[in-house]
Amino acid sequence: MKQTRCSEVSFTNVTILDGFWKDRFYDHQKTTLRASLDKCWQTGRIDNFSKAGGLMSGDFEGIFFNDSDVYKVLEGVAYSLANQYDSELECEADDIIDRIASAQEEDGYLMTYYTLVEPENKWTDMDKHEMYCGGHLIEAAIAYKHATGKDKLLGVACRLVDHYDTIFGPSKRHWVPGHEEIELALTKLYQETSEKRYLDLAIWLLEQRGRGLGEGAIWNKEDWGPAYCQDDQLVREIEKVKGHAVRAMYLYTAMSEVARLTEKEDYLAALDRVWENVITKNMYITGGIGSSHHNEGFTKDYDLPNETAYCETCASAGMIFWNHRMNLLYEDAKYADIVETELYNGLLSGVSLDGRKFFYDNPLASNGQHHRVEWFGTSCCPTQLARFIPSIVNYLYSVSNDTLYINQFIHSKSNVTWNEKQVSITQKTNYPWDGKIDLQFDLQSESSFELAVRLPGWCNQYRLLLNGELLEEYQSENGYVKINRVWHAEDRITLDLHMEVEKVYSSPAVRENVGKVALRNGPLVYAFEGVDHLNRDLERIFLSDSSHFTTKFDESILSGVIVIKSNALYVKDECLKEPLYHSNKPDLIPIDIKAVPYYSWNNRGNGQMRVWLNHRI
Amino acid sequence: MKQTRCSEVSFTNVTILDGFWKDRFYDHQKTTLRASLDKCWQTGRIDNFSKAGGLMSGDFEGIFFNDSDVYKVLEGVAYSLANQYDSELECEADDIIDRIASAQEEDGYLMTYYTLVEPENKWTDMDKHEMYCGGHLIEAAIAYKHATGKDKLLGVACRLVDHYDTIFGPSKRHWVPGHEEIELALTKLYQETSEKRYLDLAIWLLEQRGRGLGEGAIWNKEDWGPAYCQDDQLVREIEKVKGHAVRAMYLYTAMSEVARLTEKEDYLAALDRVWENVITKNMYITGGIGSSHHNEGFTKDYDLPNETAYCETCASAGMIFWNHRMNLLYEDAKYADIVETELYNGLLSGVSLDGRKFFYDNPLASNGQHHRVEWFGTSCCPTQLARFIPSIVNYLYSVSNDTLYINQFIHSKSNVTWNEKQVSITQKTNYPWDGKIDLQFDLQSESSFELAVRLPGWCNQYRLLLNGELLEEYQSENGYVKINRVWHAEDRITLDLHMEVEKVYSSPAVRENVGKVALRNGPLVYAFEGVDHLNRDLERIFLSDSSHFTTKFDESILSGVIVIKSNALYVKDECLKEPLYHSNKPDLIPIDIKAVPYYSWNNRGNGQMRVWLNHRI
Repeated sequence: MKQTRCSEVSFTNVTILDGFWKDRFYDHQKTTLRASLDKCWQTGRIDNFSKAGGLMSGDFEGIFFNDSDVYKVLEGVAYSLANQYDSELECEADDIIDRIASAQEEDGYLMTYYTLVEPENKWTDMDKHEMYCGGHLIEAAIAYKHATGKDKLLGVACRLVDHYDTIFGPSKRHWVPGHEEIELALTKLYQETSEKRYLDLAIWLLEQRGRGLGEGAIWNKEDWGPAYCQDDQLVREIEKVKGHAVRAMYLYTAMSEVARLTEKEDYLAALDRVWENVITKNMYITGGIGSSHHNEGFTKDYDLPNETAYCETCASAGMIFWNHRMNLLYEDAKYADIVETELYNGLLSGVSLDGRKFFYDNPLASNGQHHRVEWFGTSCCPTQLARFIPSIVNYLYSVSNDTLYINQFIHSKSNVTWNEKQVSITQKTNYPWDGKIDLQFDLQSESSFELAVRLPGWCNQYRLLLNGELLEEYQSENGYVKINRVWHAEDRITLDLHMEVEKVYSSPAVRENVGKVALRNGPLVYAFEGVDHLNRDLERIFLSDSSHFTTKFDESILSGVIVIKSNALYVKDECLKEPLYHSNKPDLIPIDIKAVPYYSWNNRGNGQMRVWLNHRI
Repeated sequence: MKQTRCSEVSFTNVTILDGFWKDRFYDHQKTTLRASLDKCWQTGRIDNFSKAGGLMSGDFEGIFFNDSDVYKVLEGVAYSLANQYDSELECEADDIIDRIASAQEEDGYLMTYYTLVEPENKWTDMDKHEMYCGGHLIEAAIAYKHATGKDKLLGVACRLVDHYDTIFGPSKRHWVPGHEEIELALTKLYQETSEKRYLDLAIWLLEQRGRGLGEGAIWNKEDWGPAYCQDDQLVREIEKVKGHAVRAMYLYTAMSEVARLTEKEDYLAALDRVWENVITKNMYITGGIGSSHHNEGFTKDYDLPNETAYCETCASAGMIFWNHRMNLLYEDAKYADIVETELYNGLLSGVSLDGRKFFYDNPLASNGQHHRVEWFGTSCCPTQLARFIPSIVNYLYSVSNDTLYINQFIHSKSNVTWNEKQVSITQKTNYPWDGKIDLQFDLQSESSFELAVRLPGWCNQYRLLLNGELLEEYQSENGYVKINRVWHAEDRITLDLHMEVEKVYSSPAVRENVGKVALRNGPLVYAFEGVDHLNRDLERIFLSDSSHFTTKFDESILSGVIVIKSNALYVKDECLKEPLYHSNKPDLIPIDIKAVPYYSWNNRGNGQMRVWLNHRI
C-alpha cells in the first residue's frame, strides 16, 4: 500500500465567507461558546482553578474532571478569536489562563480536583482523568498560541508534561490513562515544540496498554473491565472496536498521528483493521457510534438499535479527529467522507439551531422523550461543540508534496502555503444544499501543482470544468479527482455534483433495520418528524416502490433547509379500533410525507422522529 | 350487568385421564415438584424452619422471603397427592410441616428470616414480605387439608393470622403488604373456616392501600414508589394496571374474590376497568404481562417489546388466578379464554418439556441468549409451577345455581356435586391438537340442569351434537353454549371446534408489531425457531399474502406437537455482502418455514426465536 503523508492546513489560514456554516460559525461566539463560558463561571469550574491557586477560598465544586471543560472552551475561544477577533473575549480568556496558571503546583502538577480534595491520592486511580485533563490543557494551549501568539498557557502545559515525565516512562512508573486524550495531545505538543520527549511519552503511554497492569474502579467492574478503556490488549493488536466510544476514538486518533509521524507499520495495520470494523459493522448511517447507554460505547457488530442508540456527540467529534488524521495518513477521500457524514449529521445534531441546547446522545428514533438541554452534569458534549464548531476550518484542506487536497466544501477563502508554494483559493458553494463547488484561484504567478478535489462517496454522477469548459483529462484516485497542471493566476475549477434523493438500505445483518429504508440527499441524512405528519404515528408509515421524491428549499422552517416530500402508505386509524390481537390485515391509505435533515430535528418541539421508516418490500 | 356468582369445583373431584396434560400432570411429581423439594432442602430453605424452631443450629440462609417457596412446594405436594398418592411424599411433607410448626413463635409469629436474623425489626419494612409468606402458608395449609385431611398446618396458619389480628386492623396498626398475597389467601381461609374475621382482615388490608401511609425501601425509590406495589391509590379507584405485575395480579385476585363474596360494587367497577386495560392494552399475544425487566411490571399502554419482554411466569399464573375468579364472578367465557391462553402459552413456556428447567421471564423473541435454567436465587417461578401444574384440575369446571360450566378441555373424569345435583362427567379430547370434545355423562338418574360449554374466543366455526345428532336448539351467551334440559344417564354432548391456522395482527398502537404477523392454531400461539430454519436469521423472513399453511402432528419432536409449515420470503445472504448502507433494495428468495407451539421453544438448544415475523404488507 502506498503510504504518503499529508499535513493539515491550519485554521488560521481559512476564513468562512458564506453558506451553510457561516452563521453557525460566526454566531457561535455569542451562543454556544458564550453559554459554555458562562456555565464554566457559574458552575465553579473556573473558580476551582482560583481556589487551587489560592486566589479565592472555598471547596472544589463539581465532578473531578471538570477542569477539562474549561480547557475545551478556551480552545474554542482560540479558534473563534482567530476568525472573529474580540478584545473582551481575549481579555476574559487571559484572565482564565492566569487562574489556571495559579493552580499549577510547584512541581508542575495541575488538576484542581486533586489539589483541593485529596492531594494525597494523586496518581492512585487511573480512571480519574488526570492526564485527560492535561491533554485538553495542551490542546487549548496550542490553539491559543496560534490564535493570539500568547504562550503563557503553553508554558503551563509544557511544565505539566515535564512533570509527567519525571514520574512516568521507561523504568519509571507504569500508567494507563483511563480516558485517552493525553496521547493525541502529546502528538500535537511534539509538533508544536519539536520536543521529541513529548512524542516519546505519547508512544510510551500507548504501549503501556494491554499489559494487565491497569488499576482503578473501571478495571474491576464486571460489565466493563479493561476493554472499556482499551486496556485489554496491546494497541498494535487491536482488531475490533471495543468499550467506551469516545475513549476509543481518542486512542485511534493518537495512534494515527503517531503512525503518520513515525511510520509505525504495526499501528497502521491495527488502524486499518479497526477502521474497517467500525465503518462496516458499528456505525449508524448518521455517523453515530457507540450504540449502548450502558457503557457509552460498543456492544457487538451490527448491534445498532435506533431508539436507544447512544451515539454520543463527543464520539462523532472523535470520529472526525480520527478520520481526519487517517486522511492525512493515506490521502484517501473515504476518510474525509466520514468527516463529512459526522459534520452534517451525527455531530451537528448535537446542537440546536440557536446554538444554545445540546444532545449528549443522538438516537435515530424517538417517541417524543428525547430533547436537547442547556447543560449536563457531565457536560463534555456542549464544551466539545464549543471547541469544535470554530475549528471546522481545520478540515477543508490538506497538503502533501505537490498536491493540494480539497476535503470539505465550505464557502470560504484560504491562503495555503506548502512546499514553497503559495495558493490563495476561494471556494464558492451552497453545499450541502447544492452540489456545485466553484474553486477560484488567486495566484501571484503561475504555479505547478496537483489539485485533488474530493469526490464524495454519496455521488455517482458529476461534471468537472476548468474555466467553464468541461474537463476530460484528469486522474481519479482514492476518491479524489486530480488535476496536475500549471495553474494560472485566476484559474477556476468547477465541480458539479449531481445530488438526488437516495433510498438507503441497511445490511440485513442489522436486524433493527430489516424491512426499513432511510433517505439521504447528498451528505445529509434525513429524518421524519411527527410535527410534519399531523402527529400521525411514524411507525405506521410505509414507504413503497411507488414513493416519489421531490426536494425543495424551504426557508420558512429550521433556518432554511431542503425538505424532501414524498408519498407513502399509512396504517389507518380505524385499525386502532380492532382488538389488541385480531385477524384483519391492516388497511393502508396513501398519505403525503416530508423529511427534514436529521441534524435539524427536535427544533420544533418534542415529538416523534424516525430516520428509518418501514418499507413495503 | 347481570352478576351471578359461581363456585369452583375442587381439584379433589377431577382426575386427568389422558391427552395433552396427562404426562405433564403425572410426571410432575417426579420432575418439577421433586426438583423443587430437593432445592428447598439443598438451599437451606427448609432448614431455616428447623433453625428457627431450635431443631438445629445455624444461621438463616438465602433471601428473606424464602419461606414462601417451601409453602408453595407444599401446596403443590397437596394437589399432587390428591391425584397421585405417594406415602413417602406425604411423610416428607409431614416432616416439613413439623419443622414449620416448630418455627412458629409463642405469639403465633412465623417468618424464619426475622426470627433468625433481626427479630427486633419485625413489622418495620412493609416490603419485607412477612404477610406474603403468611399468605402462601395459608394456601398450602388449605390445600394440604383438602388433599390429606390433616390440619396441623392449617392450625399454624390460623394462629399466624390470629397474631396478625392482634396487631393490625381498625384502630390498630396500619399496614400495606408490599407484595400482595395475604389478601387472596385470607379469602380462601375465610371460605375454609367460615371465620368472618379473616375476610374482614382481607378487606381491611385492601382498604389500607392508597392512603399515603406505606413505608419501606420500595416506596422511596424514585423509579418505583408506591405504584410499584399498588399503594398509590385506593383500590376501588383503580383505572389502569401499574407497577409490579405479579403483585398487581394477586391484588386483583383478592379483590375479585372479595367482590364475589360481598358484592362490593365499587370493587367490581374497578376490576372491570383494570381488566379492560390489561387485556386491551397491556397483554402479549401469549398472555404474558409486565413488559419491563426494570420493575418486573408495567410501563405504559401498548408498550409491548418482544425481545425484552419480561412476562414473568408467575405473572401468567397470577393472570390465571385472577381471570378464573372473574369467571366465577361473571360467568363469562372471556375470562376462561384468558386462563386458556396462559395455560397453553405464557405459563407453560415457563417450564421445559422435561419439567426440570424454567424461564423466569418469557420473551417473544430471542437471538439465542435466553434459555431455561434449573433454579434461580429468587426462585418464585419454579415453585409457582411446582404448585400450579397439579392444580390445573381446579380450572375445568364451575357451578352456579342450575348450571354446570365446562371451562377448560382436558381429557378427564369428574364428579361434580352442587345444588343437590350430582353429575359424573368424562371429557374425552385430544385438545389442543384437535378441537373435538366429547362430554359423556354418567348419571344415577335423570337430572335437570343447564350445561354451559365454553366456546373459545379463537373459534369461529363449530358443531354441537347431542348423542351424535346435530343439536340446533341451544342458547349462546357470554361465550358459552348453553343446553338446558333433562339429562339422561348416558347422554353425550360433542363440541367440534373448527381449528385452522390464523394469521394474527397486532393493533397498530403496538409499535413493535407494525408490519408483523403471528400465527395461532386453536389456543396455541406459535413460534419460529432458528433450529428449524437452517439457522437463518429469523428477522429476515417475510410472510406474505401468498403464504399457505399446513399443519401436521409431528411426534418426533418436542414430545409431539402440531407443526405449522408455510412458505415465505427471505432476504438473501448475498445482501450481507453489500456495504453497511447501500442503495440496492434487498433481494428476496422463497423459503420454507416451520412454526412450533410457543410453549415448546428452547427445548432443542439455545437459538433464535420469534413469535412475530415480518409480513410483506
